[in-house]
Amino acid sequence: MDRQPRTTDLGYARLDPDRAARTGTPEVVYAAGKAPAETVGCLAGLLDAATGAGVGGQAFAWATRVDEATADAVRARWPDAHVDPVARVAWVGAPPPPVGEVLVLTAGTSDGPVAAEVAATLTASGVGCRRVDDVGVAGVHRVLAVAPDMAAADAVVVVAGMDGALPSVVAGLTDRLVVAVPTSVGYGAAFEGLAALLTMLTACAPGVLVVNIDNGFGAGVAAARIARSAQR
Amino acid sequence: MDRQPRTTDLGYARLDPDRAARTGTPEVVYAAGKAPAETVGCLAGLLDAATGAGVGGQAFAWATRVDEATADAVRARWPDAHVDPVARVAWVGAPPPPVGEVLVLTAGTSDGPVAAEVAATLTASGVGCRRVDDVGVAGVHRVLAVAPDMAAADAVVVVAGMDGALPSVVAGLTDRLVVAVPTSVGYGAAFEGLAALLTMLTACAPGVLVVNIDNGFGAGVAAARIARSAQR
Amino acid sequence: MDRQPRTTDLGYARLDPDRAARTGTPEVVYAAGKAPAETVGCLAGLLDAATGAGVGGQAFAWATRVDEATADAVRARWPDAHVDPVARVAWVGAPPPPVGEVLVLTAGTSDGPVAAEVAATLTASGVGCRRVDDVGVAGVHRVLAVAPDMAAADAVVVVAGMDGALPSVVAGLTDRLVVAVPTSVGYGAAFEGLAALLTMLTACAPGVLVVNIDNGFGAGVAAARIARSAQR
Amino acid sequence: MDRQPRTTDLGYARLDPDRAARTGTPEVVYAAGKAPAETVGCLAGLLDAATGAGVGGQAFAWATRVDEATADAVRARWPDAHVDPVARVAWVGAPPPPVGEVLVLTAGTSDGPVAAEVAATLTASGVGCRRVDDVGVAGVHRVLAVAPDMAAADAVVVVAGMDGALPSVVAGLTDRLVVAVPTSVGYGAAFEGLAALLTMLTACAPGVLVVNIDNGFGAGVAAARIARSAQR
Amino acid sequence: MDRQPRTTDLGYARLDPDRAARTGTPEVVYAAGKAPAETVGCLAGLLDAATGAGVGGQAFAWATRVDEATADAVRARWPDAHVDPVARVAWVGAPPPPVGEVLVLTAGTSDGPVAAEVAATLTASGVGCRRVDDVGVAGVHRVLAVAPDMAAADAVVVVAGMDGALPSVVAGLTDRLVVAVPTSVGYGAAFEGLAALLTMLTACAPGVLVVNIDNGFGAGVAAARIARSAQR
Amino acid sequence: MDRQPRTTDLGYARLDPDRAARTGTPEVVYAAGKAPAETVGCLAGLLDAATGAGVGGQAFAWATRVDEATADAVRARWPDAHVDPVARVAWVGAPPPPVGEVLVLTAGTSDGPVAAEVAATLTASGVGCRRVDDVGVAGVHRVLAVAPDMAAADAVVVVAGMDGALPSVVAGLTDRLVVAVPTSVGYGAAFEGLAALLTMLTACAPGVLVVNIDNGFGAGVAAARIARSAQR
Amino acid sequence: MDRQPRTTDLGYARLDPDRAARTGTPEVVYAAGKAPAETVGCLAGLLDAATGAGVGGQAFAWATRVDEATADAVRARWPDAHVDPVARVAWVGAPPPPVGEVLVLTAGTSDGPVAAEVAATLTASGVGCRRVDDVGVAGVHRVLAVAPDMAAADAVVVVAGMDGALPSVVAGLTDRLVVAVPTSVGYGAAFEGLAALLTMLTACAPGVLVVNIDNGFGAGVAAARIARSAQR
Amino acid sequence: MDRQPRTTDLGYARLDPDRAARTGTPEVVYAAGKAPAETVGCLAGLLDAATGAGVGGQAFAWATRVDEATADAVRARWPDAHVDPVARVAWVGAPPPPVGEVLVLTAGTSDGPVAAEVAATLTASGVGCRRVDDVGVAGVHRVLAVAPDMAAADAVVVVAGMDGALPSVVAGLTDRLVVAVPTSVGYGAAFEGLAALLTMLTACAPGVLVVNIDNGFGAGVAAARIARSAQR
Repeated sequence: MDRQPRTTDLGYARLDPDRAARTGTPEVVYAAGKAPAETVGCLAGLLDAATGAGVGGQAFAWATRVDEATADAVRARWPDAHVDPVARVAWVGAPPPPVGEVLVLTAGTSDGPVAAEVAATLTASGVGCRRVDDVGVAGVHRVLAVAPDMAAADAVVVVAGMDGALPSVVAGLTDRLVVAVPTSVGYGAAFEGLAALLTMLTACAPGVLVVNIDNGFGAGVAAARIARSAQR
Repeated sequence: MDRQPRTTDLGYARLDPDRAARTGTPEVVYAAGKAPAETVGCLAGLLDAATGAGVGGQAFAWATRVDEATADAVRARWPDAHVDPVARVAWVGAPPPPVGEVLVLTAGTSDGPVAAEVAATLTASGVGCRRVDDVGVAGVHRVLAVAPDMAAADAVVVVAGMDGALPSVVAGLTDRLVVAVPTSVGYGAAFEGLAALLTMLTACAPGVLVVNIDNGFGAGVAAARIARSAQR
Repeated sequence: MDRQPRTTDLGYARLDPDRAARTGTPEVVYAAGKAPAETVGCLAGLLDAATGAGVGGQAFAWATRVDEATADAVRARWPDAHVDPVARVAWVGAPPPPVGEVLVLTAGTSDGPVAAEVAATLTASGVGCRRVDDVGVAGVHRVLAVAPDMAAADAVVVVAGMDGALPSVVAGLTDRLVVAVPTSVGYGAAFEGLAALLTMLTACAPGVLVVNIDNGFGAGVAAARIARSAQR
Repeated sequence: MDRQPRTTDLGYARLDPDRAARTGTPEVVYAAGKAPAETVGCLAGLLDAATGAGVGGQAFAWATRVDEATADAVRARWPDAHVDPVARVAWVGAPPPPVGEVLVLTAGTSDGPVAAEVAATLTASGVGCRRVDDVGVAGVHRVLAVAPDMAAADAVVVVAGMDGALPSVVAGLTDRLVVAVPTSVGYGAAFEGLAALLTMLTACAPGVLVVNIDNGFGAGVAAARIARSAQR
Repeated sequence: MDRQPRTTDLGYARLDPDRAARTGTPEVVYAAGKAPAETVGCLAGLLDAATGAGVGGQAFAWATRVDEATADAVRARWPDAHVDPVARVAWVGAPPPPVGEVLVLTAGTSDGPVAAEVAATLTASGVGCRRVDDVGVAGVHRVLAVAPDMAAADAVVVVAGMDGALPSVVAGLTDRLVVAVPTSVGYGAAFEGLAALLTMLTACAPGVLVVNIDNGFGAGVAAARIARSAQR
Repeated sequence: MDRQPRTTDLGYARLDPDRAARTGTPEVVYAAGKAPAETVGCLAGLLDAATGAGVGGQAFAWATRVDEATADAVRARWPDAHVDPVARVAWVGAPPPPVGEVLVLTAGTSDGPVAAEVAATLTASGVGCRRVDDVGVAGVHRVLAVAPDMAAADAVVVVAGMDGALPSVVAGLTDRLVVAVPTSVGYGAAFEGLAALLTMLTACAPGVLVVNIDNGFGAGVAAARIARSAQR
Repeated sequence: MDRQPRTTDLGYARLDPDRAARTGTPEVVYAAGKAPAETVGCLAGLLDAATGAGVGGQAFAWATRVDEATADAVRARWPDAHVDPVARVAWVGAPPPPVGEVLVLTAGTSDGPVAAEVAATLTASGVGCRRVDDVGVAGVHRVLAVAPDMAAADAVVVVAGMDGALPSVVAGLTDRLVVAVPTSVGYGAAFEGLAALLTMLTACAPGVLVVNIDNGFGAGVAAARIARSAQR
Repeated sequence: MDRQPRTTDLGYARLDPDRAARTGTPEVVYAAGKAPAETVGCLAGLLDAATGAGVGGQAFAWATRVDEATADAVRARWPDAHVDPVARVAWVGAPPPPVGEVLVLTAGTSDGPVAAEVAATLTASGVGCRRVDDVGVAGVHRVLAVAPDMAAADAVVVVAGMDGALPSVVAGLTDRLVVAVPTSVGYGAAFEGLAALLTMLTACAPGVLVVNIDNGFGAGVAAARIARSAQR
């Protein structure tokens, strides 16, 4: 950062193209609350800034929380764009080749979309991903069975709603960092993910770090950073 | 209930001496917020009602949430009274001989006082109790190791603070009813037991029933009722 | 559990076919947040595991929180499937013949769908059910009138929204365990069932055990376990 | 109010001596958070304004939430002052002779201090009071037994902590207005009176009106207004 | 109550036809969460019980929280039924002739629907109603201007959302009881009426009694009881 | 205020046409919860009161929280009306010419609609506005870059959702008052703007004043008042 | 800011002596959570930085939330230090001569300590202060009586606990900015100031800006900034 | 884990001496809620298990949340024990020699004790620590000044109370993982650390992972794991 960071001013957005240089993670477009055209504009601006001249060779930019209308707008502009409707992620260009591997566990099948956002973020960040779904603690032998997978991974991301108890058990079985993602799966006293969030924050096992409810993106970025660091 | 239930009017309290006949559980004095003399008066009234003439043969009465001043007042009135300062329980007379057995688990050593209230309630209710402490899920092999104890019990009471994750795991390992007691052990996002309470209410395994935070008495009464029913 | 529990891996779900052997309650599919095809797949997997060869003689599997699309998918796969749209429950095969009886009370007519889930769970669990609706405490003689029904039952499930006061009164009239289900019926300070939940957790009568808001399934499983134990 | 209301400026307080003329209730000193000398000064100011010349014939002034230090200061200034340490109330002069009668019920003995504040407020307001303590719904026959007292009263004040279920039952048994006072009695999910407050606000029986947690003063003022109106 | 109260059992509902004799307020059907046919059935049952033989002379029954489908069902059964779509109230038969008068104030125009429920409840209860809308404290002269109306009324109902400050000001201007109804009008930190509810519970002026958020029915029943008592 | 303020009574609303004289800010119609015809009626009433005879020379009136149906009704009545669908604002007549300038910053593009309400309020209040969007603290150089704009402004309005951290940083860089507007942008633990609200209330830098979540109108009114005062 | 801001590193604190130049408000020491010696060290560091050579001519530094032990330590180091035990403020040196005037209102006498912190902050900031205490809305004529004081002030600070209704009324009577300070005065549903905070955030009158509960310092800094700007 | 993990049963505790082998982090005694003798017993048990024969060569065990009485008990048993009263940590034996370095930042001096727990945990875990205190965002140049320290560290721990805004800014300046620790520093709407917790969970910059309020231990364990992994 010996020079002043650049800013690309689109009026409705001020892009931060040097963020990857500063933080290791390029700016990613958060499409929720943006008009489809705004998301497309941000993606185009990031691609431009990356190449200096339009959508070129190595350019890659992506967005999260992409709804159907935005996905359509992205595909209209870049017919080759990749869209994952479950993860609600879209990208233009090719993600970096994967290094390392992060294990992504879900407590239940209904946690799948958040795990999909984790997986897509890992891919977009150039890190490998192995998913094992539905290993909730009500059948704790299922958790014990994946202990070898934990040992083989650079980090473990645990995605769980309802009681959010899975990270406490996992962190007692591995020396890897556990990134815990509470989800809004559940009803009543689950309070849209609050129960799982509090459980994870008060996990009796150390080594659990927590992100926002349903924040698969944040968990993926953090896990990717751990994995890349471990592969250096 | 073919006759009208009796009421003993002490002015500051209206005792319900027929409650045991109606509900299987005699009235127990909740000493919190009562003056020591009021707790003593309630105990005396219950003993009187049970015997018709002072502290006699089979009479037995007890109180919970007994602080030191109240314990002193109880012992001043009945020198033979039993006081358990950890469980904060005091009783006069001899509890019924125990039948059956309830397994009481704690997630951590700090949950001990609440487990002591469960155990004292079981004893006062004439039910046997087996305690195993500090089997938190951070070392899940400790939980697996008590599975045979679960199978031998009439019911399982699980006492846990912080993340409150233990009942979810236990309920996946046993066909006994699991009575879950959240405790106020913890700090920060434990919110005085709220985190554990929500975890237990949203437990992913069925067969978990929940009582109020730190309510060892309520858990003990319920577990005793299950055990006595199973022993019939 | 002298052998390792089995796991059936469907990719999006890891079934736990030995759960009934371990906990007395077979795995039940929670259809909320699952695609209809996923729920159908889970039911098929559980039926397969139960029989070793497709939908055979005694096989029985079921799902809760079944919406209309999922119900259609279930009926498309198994034309004889039973669907209860009020309870939002669907099952394939014949439930076990009923033993014992659980009394299910509601405080108001609007609590009906949750009580229906309790009743369906009891039926699916092979336990008899007697429902009496709309016995709220605003007309407390209606509660007193069902005291004989309580005495005849193995357990009492009380379903109530709004002030959630009914379990406190019921537990003072019976020696049966009272399983209390708060519902999201009400508005304003009912806070989607929170008021009823807190009321039930702080019930002044012991013998009340609480499940999550609107969790008719959990209440049914617990009550069935009590009833079957009492019938042994 | 054909003339402008007067204000007595003490610097730290601006007394409102015409409040009784305007609202039927004279200004009462809320001693919490005030220095003892400030409470004494306010009482003196109200007495002065009432008589025009010091503590005279009919003058009467009083304060709530009076701690020991303030009580001492009041007695030092007016040796004849009346102090009720349970209700935490102090007054100077003679309250008006009582008319009518309000029934004050408590759910438990521990609710006593709040009921004492209700009773003192009624006395200070010139209204009769009949108290019946410890009629919680866990022994609902105790509630039914006071139905005749309800019918004889001008209004019913119900004081209850924990589950706060008593007003719902009472309101189903009487045509009198029920003023419900939640108390901070209880622990855990009672959340310092929040559980009882929500229960009372969502009471399934109409005719229940609610005041703040532990607000015996507010309940007493309201009940006194109803009683005086009924006696006109 | 020298005889046992009657209960009309409809299966899905147990009507309480003697409630008016007991509490002065007949049972009113809460239509939310009921199927239209259930609401119609309850109304018919109440009318039958009132007359002993179908919809006869003085019979009158009504329902609250009536949506469009239920209103249609009511009109299909009783073409002369009265439906107020703003208040969401429907009744069959003629309400009693009005006695006395209650003043109903709103803080803003958007509080209108709740005030309409208050007004309808007063009418159905045989009490007169005078409404003055939009007298929020941001223009406090508007409040002062209605002081004469307060003096002429038997009670004052104040309906307010957002900051809920109006009852505090009103109670300082009148000796009538103030029944405060918080509404869910507002956004953000209004938290669906919670802000107004807390404001009213902590009103610095005594004489304010509070009902649930948006509970125009409860406020109307209480105010009607006050008015009828004052008119005796 | 040497004379009594006027009130225009429309039945459903009581307009306060002297509010501008009293408070410097004319009454503005809050259209949420009002029928389109009611909003139109209020605007017409305010215009009438301003001119004494219909929509005349200098008359100007406006409304916030205008949805599409209301916007149509406004345009039907006044074809020249100005409608801003992003800010959800509509006005009739010409706003006063602008004096001074307020800087309006957003943390992200998704905060745009709230910032648009701020800007529209400034315009309607006769104050200049300069907007710079998307200067969130994740790229803090973007914030530093607008320090000269802060120095040139009469006040700074900061609009931010999610973590709401921007005002803390801005207030450390300027001697202007910072009016902070939390927005409901975000998900999970953002809790509809609660996270940002708490952040702003606890900002470690003094000089931050906070308005309700999404309350662009309130922020605009306050900032306009500061700007006009600075320009005097 | 054409040069880099200085930082004085004390190890446990990094002082920001150029903050006044940047923000118009010098760094003020927040003594809560600091050891007395740390607060003294910070004050000494700020004085040094201000003069370049120890406690000299115009140097002035101060601290808030000063408890008795810290006050003693300050007076031990600087015998001439000014300590206000009600406001919990201490300063060394002479504050700037006052310009302008801010009106500080309290709703009740118990809000006095917070108002004292506002007043001390104004004095320390070189702005005049006029306090009028105990003008709560329960006697709204007291509020109307201070309208001339509002008109004469540069800004109005309103300090209120319990219902927090005063700012809504004040803002409807003045064209000055209203800085609202909720206090933790009250009990029960006041929830330590939460009720007042929500009331002020949802005030129906625009022109109200809110600071944290009990934050007299923040309100004083903001009001001083307004006053100095108006006096330019 | 090819063999079954060992458990050391002390009755009141069941130690897990193989936890380090399983998770890389040995069991650490949480002294809160334990009697001093229990903490001493746990430490002795862990030391015994580590050496096979009393306190020997390389044995090392430690405890957190150690109050004065427990510290005295530890020193009585092991006179050479190390006690850090600010961090509330005690250990017996010599911690491993440090590798790598973690940067620990605090937003304010009052956050010091939590940062001390982070630092002690790092030392006990054999990882180097560099602390820079009081770099809050109100003087953002102080944050920018530590960017080189971030680049030199293996991970960054940010400790902040009040608004909790610091991690958002830090994460925008570094490619290291940011472990954010909210503290209970602050008052009013800080709600004992809740405000900072929510801010950190909703941080607009990715790469922020959160632990429980005041959980310096958990942050230290996680950061140590990152540092050791980076040093491999």
